Amino acid sequence: MTFTSHMQTALDEARKAADRGEVPVGAVLVDARGQVVAQAGNRTRELHDPTAHAEILVIRAACAAAQSERLPGYSLYVTLEPCAMCATAISAARIARLYYAASDPKSGGVAHGARVFSHPQCHHAPEIYDGIAAHEAETLLKTFFQDRRDMGA
Amino acid sequence: MTFTSHMQTALDEARKAADRGEVPVGAVLVDARGQVVAQAGNRTRELHDPTAHAEILVIRAACAAAQSERLPGYSLYVTLEPCAMCATAISAARIARLYYAASDPKSGGVAHGARVFSHPQCHHAPEIYDGIAAHEAETLLKTFFQDRRDMGA
Repeated sequence: MTFTSHMQTALDEARKAADRGEVPVGAVLVDARGQVVAQAGNRTRELHDPTAHAEILVIRAACAAAQSERLPGYSLYVTLEPCAMCATAISAARIARLYYAASDPKSGGVAHGARVFSHPQCHHAPEIYDGIAAHEAETLLKTFFQDRRDMGA
Repeated sequence: MTFTSHMQTALDEARKAADRGEVPVGAVLVDARGQVVAQAGNRTRELHDPTAHAEILVIRAACAAAQSERLPGYSLYVTLEPCAMCATAISAARIARLYYAASDPKSGGVAHGARVFSHPQCHHAPEIYDGIAAHEAETLLKTFFQDRRDMGA
């Protein structure tokens, strides 16, 4: 499995999230041996949980599986630039590499706004690779919000 | 119940966290009618969950109880300045007021570092009241870390 196929898995999770009426963002967590250990899409509405972003769901699932608060050597793939909440959770979990697709000027916390990884109060920053399958992820998000506007939601 | 007694409840949760070997931070969430709807201390070690900060635990519990992603009119009391993860979750949950005790120059994300509420990417900022029972909360944290150093942890 290459990083593009992991991002395709994350995009599949984003599409499934859209089908559930959730903002289409998906994430995949891969361990140090290259095995997918968790994959999820947003479930904030279904779970009535504002913290149930795709990234948080895969981190919690992988930590539970590993019986550890930390995931050294793991790689996180996500279809949208993480918000400040998810970026801080990625740091707390000591995730080694972050791959994300679309940029998020509106709510992102990595390359925008809070820029979580760029302060001394952040005690671990992952390697960051952005722009992978960005067009596909952006189209998914734009279509979702356009459809909702067309429905008057 | 006044804000000082809610902070005392949060301090009690912080003490119970210390007794469990967790970093002593406690939080209390109060609804718009002034009723305590959730209280918790850190459980990151016990739950093997880096997101299980006191603030996240009370937000998730209160949202589950309210069957809503949002907690408008609610007040959050916490013994330490929230990190960027918790500050962003507070924003996402649309919590109205944030009361915190000790300042956290090392890992805080409200008055330090990421300063989550101060960017346009943050779509809701609570009213913030800091310094309540700060000395008590600081002493609790200092004693915890001093004890751990003395034990060679």
